[in-house]
Amino acid sequence: MIIVMNPRCSAEHTDNVVALLDRMGLAGWVIEGASQKVIEVLGGNGDIDRGALECAPMVDRILDRADPILAATREPGDQTKAVPLGANATMGGQKLGIIAGPCAVEDRERLLEIAHAAKEAGAAALRGGAYKPRTSPYSFQGHAEKGLEWLAEAREQTGLAIVTEVMRCEHVERVAQYADVLQVGSRNMHHTHLLATVGKQSKPVLLKRGWCSTIDEFLSAAEYIMLGGNRNVMLCERGIRTHETYVRNTLALALVPELKRRSTLPVVVDPSHGTGKDYLVPPMSNAAIACGADGLLVEIHTAPDRAWSDGCQSLDLKEFASLMEGLKPIANACGRTL
Amino acid sequence: MIIVMNPRCSAEHTDNVVALLDRMGLAGWVIEGASQKVIEVLGGNGDIDRGALECAPMVDRILDRADPILAATREPGDQTKAVPLGANATMGGQKLGIIAGPCAVEDRERLLEIAHAAKEAGAAALRGGAYKPRTSPYSFQGHAEKGLEWLAEAREQTGLAIVTEVMRCEHVERVAQYADVLQVGSRNMHHTHLLATVGKQSKPVLLKRGWCSTIDEFLSAAEYIMLGGNRNVMLCERGIRTHETYVRNTLALALVPELKRRSTLPVVVDPSHGTGKDYLVPPMSNAAIACGADGLLVEIHTAPDRAWSDGCQSLDLKEFASLMEGLKPIANACGRTL
Amino acid sequence: MIIVMNPRCSAEHTDNVVALLDRMGLAGWVIEGASQKVIEVLGGNGDIDRGALECAPMVDRILDRADPILAATREPGDQTKAVPLGANATMGGQKLGIIAGPCAVEDRERLLEIAHAAKEAGAAALRGGAYKPRTSPYSFQGHAEKGLEWLAEAREQTGLAIVTEVMRCEHVERVAQYADVLQVGSRNMHHTHLLATVGKQSKPVLLKRGWCSTIDEFLSAAEYIMLGGNRNVMLCERGIRTHETYVRNTLALALVPELKRRSTLPVVVDPSHGTGKDYLVPPMSNAAIACGADGLLVEIHTAPDRAWSDGCQSLDLKEFASLMEGLKPIANACGRTL
Amino acid sequence: MIIVMNPRCSAEHTDNVVALLDRMGLAGWVIEGASQKVIEVLGGNGDIDRGALECAPMVDRILDRADPILAATREPGDQTKAVPLGANATMGGQKLGIIAGPCAVEDRERLLEIAHAAKEAGAAALRGGAYKPRTSPYSFQGHAEKGLEWLAEAREQTGLAIVTEVMRCEHVERVAQYADVLQVGSRNMHHTHLLATVGKQSKPVLLKRGWCSTIDEFLSAAEYIMLGGNRNVMLCERGIRTHETYVRNTLALALVPELKRRSTLPVVVDPSHGTGKDYLVPPMSNAAIACGADGLLVEIHTAPDRAWSDGCQSLDLKEFASLMEGLKPIANACGRTL
Repeated sequence: MIIVMNPRCSAEHTDNVVALLDRMGLAGWVIEGASQKVIEVLGGNGDIDRGALECAPMVDRILDRADPILAATREPGDQTKAVPLGANATMGGQKLGIIAGPCAVEDRERLLEIAHAAKEAGAAALRGGAYKPRTSPYSFQGHAEKGLEWLAEAREQTGLAIVTEVMRCEHVERVAQYADVLQVGSRNMHHTHLLATVGKQSKPVLLKRGWCSTIDEFLSAAEYIMLGGNRNVMLCERGIRTHETYVRNTLALALVPELKRRSTLPVVVDPSHGTGKDYLVPPMSNAAIACGADGLLVEIHTAPDRAWSDGCQSLDLKEFASLMEGLKPIANACGRTL
Repeated sequence: MIIVMNPRCSAEHTDNVVALLDRMGLAGWVIEGASQKVIEVLGGNGDIDRGALECAPMVDRILDRADPILAATREPGDQTKAVPLGANATMGGQKLGIIAGPCAVEDRERLLEIAHAAKEAGAAALRGGAYKPRTSPYSFQGHAEKGLEWLAEAREQTGLAIVTEVMRCEHVERVAQYADVLQVGSRNMHHTHLLATVGKQSKPVLLKRGWCSTIDEFLSAAEYIMLGGNRNVMLCERGIRTHETYVRNTLALALVPELKRRSTLPVVVDPSHGTGKDYLVPPMSNAAIACGADGLLVEIHTAPDRAWSDGCQSLDLKEFASLMEGLKPIANACGRTL
Repeated sequence: MIIVMNPRCSAEHTDNVVALLDRMGLAGWVIEGASQKVIEVLGGNGDIDRGALECAPMVDRILDRADPILAATREPGDQTKAVPLGANATMGGQKLGIIAGPCAVEDRERLLEIAHAAKEAGAAALRGGAYKPRTSPYSFQGHAEKGLEWLAEAREQTGLAIVTEVMRCEHVERVAQYADVLQVGSRNMHHTHLLATVGKQSKPVLLKRGWCSTIDEFLSAAEYIMLGGNRNVMLCERGIRTHETYVRNTLALALVPELKRRSTLPVVVDPSHGTGKDYLVPPMSNAAIACGADGLLVEIHTAPDRAWSDGCQSLDLKEFASLMEGLKPIANACGRTL
Repeated sequence: MIIVMNPRCSAEHTDNVVALLDRMGLAGWVIEGASQKVIEVLGGNGDIDRGALECAPMVDRILDRADPILAATREPGDQTKAVPLGANATMGGQKLGIIAGPCAVEDRERLLEIAHAAKEAGAAALRGGAYKPRTSPYSFQGHAEKGLEWLAEAREQTGLAIVTEVMRCEHVERVAQYADVLQVGSRNMHHTHLLATVGKQSKPVLLKRGWCSTIDEFLSAAEYIMLGGNRNVMLCERGIRTHETYVRNTLALALVPELKRRSTLPVVVDPSHGTGKDYLVPPMSNAAIACGADGLLVEIHTAPDRAWSDGCQSLDLKEFASLMEGLKPIANACGRTL
């Protein structure tokens, strides 16, 4: 059970509720976010005097669910929030937000060549990993700060926004200096301290769904971020792990309309990780837009067969241009522009 | 290991290969289909004299896979096969094939009302279960022959093709008298004798993927049908069972382009079972067409909240008309018509 | 909603309830089993006059669940039902029931050799497929009646009970002539007509769980059998399909105590299909017994590496003897005998 | 491709191999662990001059797998490593290691009562969360340092080893001051920086498998820890997420013998999270030991129905004593002691 306090309540008010709980033989756990004050009720087994709590000063409402979604809930008539994608674009508006780039930042020249091609084809942002989460400790872990510098140079040359992953709390500040959007990857969707840390700075966050997470866990992860005060969150579906083996992951596109129904946050789809096969990226990009996605996150590379990671799911630069060309009529049919 | 014989080979030729295998200490299992003759090699552990087998008369080729797909394989340049959907339509051509109707045939008047509305909105076929596969023996199992008669009457009145499920081998002949397309449901995708039986009659078959089947198992099930001589098979994706709980099933749309890449059979998507939620049917219908599906199978009902089964995933007649309206621009963007 | 009628009610009583429903604007679907009479209520949306129905003559109770389990429900103090395993053994008693044999009956000599070894090692029954469900139509489908004859001969020589799969309704009678226990395989757990058919004959049935079925679906399948009058059902867990790839299936052993908690039917575990790896069969056999299984279904073969199917999960005869030896202390620790 | 260098090689030797790769148009990524030196080859597409690399000085071997397991691989004849569980016990020896305690440390008195009961019943270690990973930011996140102090007091009074979770890198040092074993939870199995951090300190680590992780990912996570020099790792299976809903997770016990076959690390099973139901904990504890687990991690509480988290899967103190009593004969049957 959760007691939602009025955001303007004082410490005295929350103390009062905790004391009330104490007299009932219960404990209260106080959570103070940038604009939320909430008290979790602990130790009960159902027989709680709800009326007394509801009448306490500054108590707004009592919720039975253990994991409520309080921020960014969509009410009837609400619009999707347009989250900035650098200075010149947004994710969640009428224009689709296309983010493209290599899995990992490999070297400066290759990155710049990719950036220019992405820009040319109509992308709004460049993605590229300077810090790479890898299953094995013996795999390339990214060029770190050097990679960030190259990304910043690519932005200067092309005007593309920079989207890059941050994996460690102590890197957040540094990555935020270079990037326009901080990506929290699938492996870190449950890394609550990282979520809280990116929630306390001001750069928008692209949050990827864990590959075995429920929609409630996904929205709760977004809640961790927003609790810190940062409301600029984009949600990204990137496929779940199932019994299927012809794909790397099963892209669960019904999540897109479901997320948009429950929340005002914009929704992005990653058809590259979501399928693991280059030839499935274009049809699934079309499908993602057709069911309401606000944008795409696509892996592209100058020479996918020589990529340091994820080559088989990356498009080459020509294929990406052709993907963008093919998306146009679908986007228009959905009342969106590219 | 599989030895594919020349289709024109005689019993003597297959006997010869079996004798050859016998001399190698192996056994041979002969399969004779309408146009395929194949010998499975049994009992070996890898150390087989392949050369001797390859040189035997009328041996076409030897395959190492245990479950090869021999019929309806797509070769470069192949077109999707257009399978008849009654007298006036096809599934797999430039025009999308839309099949709509109630989960179960409940009564005559309701069925006729649904049929007229489906026709009006642009559907090519009416679906409705006269025989219902149900998890519990205490659930409604369908009106049987009476249901078939009502379906035939609906066809007479509207010109719609009739798609209905057959669950038992001994019903195939009877159902084929009334229906234009025989549906084999998800629960029966592995019911090989039913597959073989519908493969030996001439009405087209709509084969639904088992909810936990792999793509290879799905194509092997189609192979069981085609082995009997019936090449008019439509493949239907209807969602898989995963850890997700906000949907009844996870609609695995990447299967659509993958099936079309491997096979020439047309592919249908069932967004009703594929999500289990009425409000997810329109966006997922759009997505299905956008990634290349040739048609849809949609549950509709005059009053979904009073439907005898699957009410929460059924559209009412007005919602269906609106779904069809919304599909048009997407269809056109994909170079298809509705 | 389900109305459970008193088993002694007449047609007049059920007609009366159906008429009552009709007057409420609802429909009633009557199911008459060997000892159950049940009416499913159709067409409502929640606003039903429950009191009127509860007062109707011969109405026992009204259940809200759509898929109730009525037969073999375990009440406090109930014992597990001991189901006959041939003339000399049972499944579900204090002595564990061990069923062993090859995946497929391949030839007479091999089968007899396996049967003698199984007997020697302490098995109570011989399993072997005369009819084989196979994913591909190009795979060996079993020796059919000849296989049944060899099985019967093995019983004569060893006294072992015979467990063999039946896949088609029209084979039930014939298989029941030879076998002591009819096996319904995983692929056929949802083949409701087959379930009903084996429910109307008297030989015990070993029902395997579908590889993606829920516990409710599994118990409902058993209910289909028992509705026909046959209460001699054994439930068999054989693994489910998950994201795991180092095993063929994920053996979900917690199902064993859960099934035993809900039902009085005996529970068997198949560690061969449940893992797909010979070396995992002994530890998982131990685990199955330790969590309460009443018996095992184990694949054994004279030469697993030359087996016609499932070789990599079969034990050779020596390994099986050693498995049985190793099981003894575990069985004793659990208060069971071998 | 991975080049495993001789551990005694100098920087000159690795530089030499990287230069060699550079001349082939490839890149080399050098990983230096406490006792491993490895170079990942990047940028190739298969056409690599392997011979030249194999002949380079101090190259030990070349592996094709991207994610090799180099530490704690089990070779024929190897024993399971006995990892210290405090001063008086080990995990992985002949005596089973039982770890019991509450999900979260709630208050001092309750913790001490639980600790004494655990000790009495035969546990070797006390578990309890001072830092709690929670899906929702509005759930109790643990008493932090105060919780650690209470745990230390419980150790003083009982002699039990303390196992507690660490979630943040900057907490590792502090938690290691209080705890005997650091637990890395399921949500953090992919938190590679945390893995590396606990790998560079000397307290043993209990690593829980991610709920949707493969065995290779699990062993790779252990490799991240061991690469830092800490070889005292225990692996813990705690269930995976599947389609099953009657349990919180599907306990995949076949992982136990598979892990023990591949690695020398001891294996622990958590039947509490692995089932989510108190009544399934005793049978699954038995099963875990029967298939070779070296120990258990069990949630216990003075009053499960008033627990602040995970109450429905916690045993009360009496049930735990009874679980331990019941385990004895199974342990003995497996040649283990309790």
